[in-house]
Amino acid sequence: MSTTTVVPLSEYMREQVKLADEALHRVVPADSHSPETIHKAMRYSLFAGGKRVRPMLCMEACRAVGRRVEGIETAACTLELVHTYSLIHDDLPAIDNDDLRRGRPTNHVVFGEAMAVLAGDALLTLSFEVLAKLPGVPAETRAALVLELASSAGTVEGMIAGQVRDIEGEKAEPTPERLHAIHRAKTGALLRASVRMGAIYAGATPDELDALSRYGEHVGLAFQIVDDILDMEESSEALGKTAGKDAAQHKITFPAVYGLDASRRMAEAELTAAHETLARFGDRAYWLHQLADLIVHRKT
Amino acid sequence: MSTTTVVPLSEYMREQVKLADEALHRVVPADSHSPETIHKAMRYSLFAGGKRVRPMLCMEACRAVGRRVEGIETAACTLELVHTYSLIHDDLPAIDNDDLRRGRPTNHVVFGEAMAVLAGDALLTLSFEVLAKLPGVPAETRAALVLELASSAGTVEGMIAGQVRDIEGEKAEPTPERLHAIHRAKTGALLRASVRMGAIYAGATPDELDALSRYGEHVGLAFQIVDDILDMEESSEALGKTAGKDAAQHKITFPAVYGLDASRRMAEAELTAAHETLARFGDRAYWLHQLADLIVHRKT
Repeated sequence: MSTTTVVPLSEYMREQVKLADEALHRVVPADSHSPETIHKAMRYSLFAGGKRVRPMLCMEACRAVGRRVEGIETAACTLELVHTYSLIHDDLPAIDNDDLRRGRPTNHVVFGEAMAVLAGDALLTLSFEVLAKLPGVPAETRAALVLELASSAGTVEGMIAGQVRDIEGEKAEPTPERLHAIHRAKTGALLRASVRMGAIYAGATPDELDALSRYGEHVGLAFQIVDDILDMEESSEALGKTAGKDAAQHKITFPAVYGLDASRRMAEAELTAAHETLARFGDRAYWLHQLADLIVHRKT
Repeated sequence: MSTTTVVPLSEYMREQVKLADEALHRVVPADSHSPETIHKAMRYSLFAGGKRVRPMLCMEACRAVGRRVEGIETAACTLELVHTYSLIHDDLPAIDNDDLRRGRPTNHVVFGEAMAVLAGDALLTLSFEVLAKLPGVPAETRAALVLELASSAGTVEGMIAGQVRDIEGEKAEPTPERLHAIHRAKTGALLRASVRMGAIYAGATPDELDALSRYGEHVGLAFQIVDDILDMEESSEALGKTAGKDAAQHKITFPAVYGLDASRRMAEAELTAAHETLARFGDRAYWLHQLADLIVHRKT
């Protein structure tokens, strides 16, 4: 591809974060909207410096397919709504009991537990409302997007399944099978759905959807391996959340099961596999390649 | 209408509860489905003797319109998923801190707080998944049902708005305006949506949808007035939940604002208004009339 037309990565990232944030500002009621407290609580966690990885994957998958791209930011931002809901609920005293997230006090520390439960519920609910009424998008596509997001967040092979297995895994033998079952559901499902939703929005063919699903699976697994490594190696200050919690809570992690070096090699292998899935998309997948690299080589 | 063809109310109710329960059994993964704990927790609260008021309103509104009725049970049961999610989260120690619901220990008492949070999240998520893939229903209708349910559960004029106002109302002056704003959102929105979703499923005209929306609003308000009266008058044993909690928690209630007698008269006035909205539907609204009577004259 002609690299002269390509903006630097840092500029690209700034633009994409801006697109996702503008969409979030449009879909979430203002702080001043009654009842104010819940909208303040929702916005507090939404606009806390999230990297917008899921909306970016969604927007780029859509652009790689390319048949419909207008308005994708709105669909993409629902992934951030669901991701943020899951963080707020995970941080609750009854679950992970975490006081720090993205370098700031967690939602329940600021707004109290009752409001944090409701803010999570509200973000989840809003995500489906936004998808169901996406302007200018055929109803068949809107329904397919709702289905994709809901199943990726659910109890069968979705995020909640992973969260339950993670909680129960704290008392279980750390086997590779259990480790993969947790992470395929806990973080993998929503990252895979991010890519798939972009493809569905764009009207992907079954072959395109299949290739991008595999991209999402490889990137999702690499993401989790790197997350586990960072939790072990980096400081709380660098991560903006409490580091070393996995070991403290006896979580099943990739370094714990495979060791650090093997985990690093696994992440690189997943990255290579992710790149290979993109062959058919040529230049249109430029940023999907870049995002995969970034996810694996990030430091926070 | 020819009353000879009409089954007795008790038999009708048994049949309708059975239809709703069968649909719930179909859409919620079995207890034995991995991860088992979450499906057990979801089913524990779902099959705890709920009266299925919302699914019944939905099914009957659908039958009153009558253009599409096949499969309505599946759409109707999503209202029970959302209602049950809201009960599980409301009962949490951080919110209403209630140990008793429908005569049994609440979800978090049995499964722990972490699982109760996740079970509520899971029921909410599942409701949208079920609607998005309703078999044999046009995509336009499926998307409209998702939108109706999500907005009735949301923060603008939906259930969460009501819940937040309720929590904040404990410290506020009990004015009629505040009382109505709480209940229109907290219980009214989902009851109204129950009726509207049945109408939407059936392919109601705008006029039919409008009439049934007003029916839902009157029944919803009557329901809440009666709920407040029962909380004041009945024992915990009769209600199957902790009675007298409204006063103990300084909740704004209809008896507290208007007095008991005026509250009873208001409920009857709403009932009369509800009946009047049904004129255009003739005999097909027979059970909607009966359900309105039942909601206002119930004892638990």
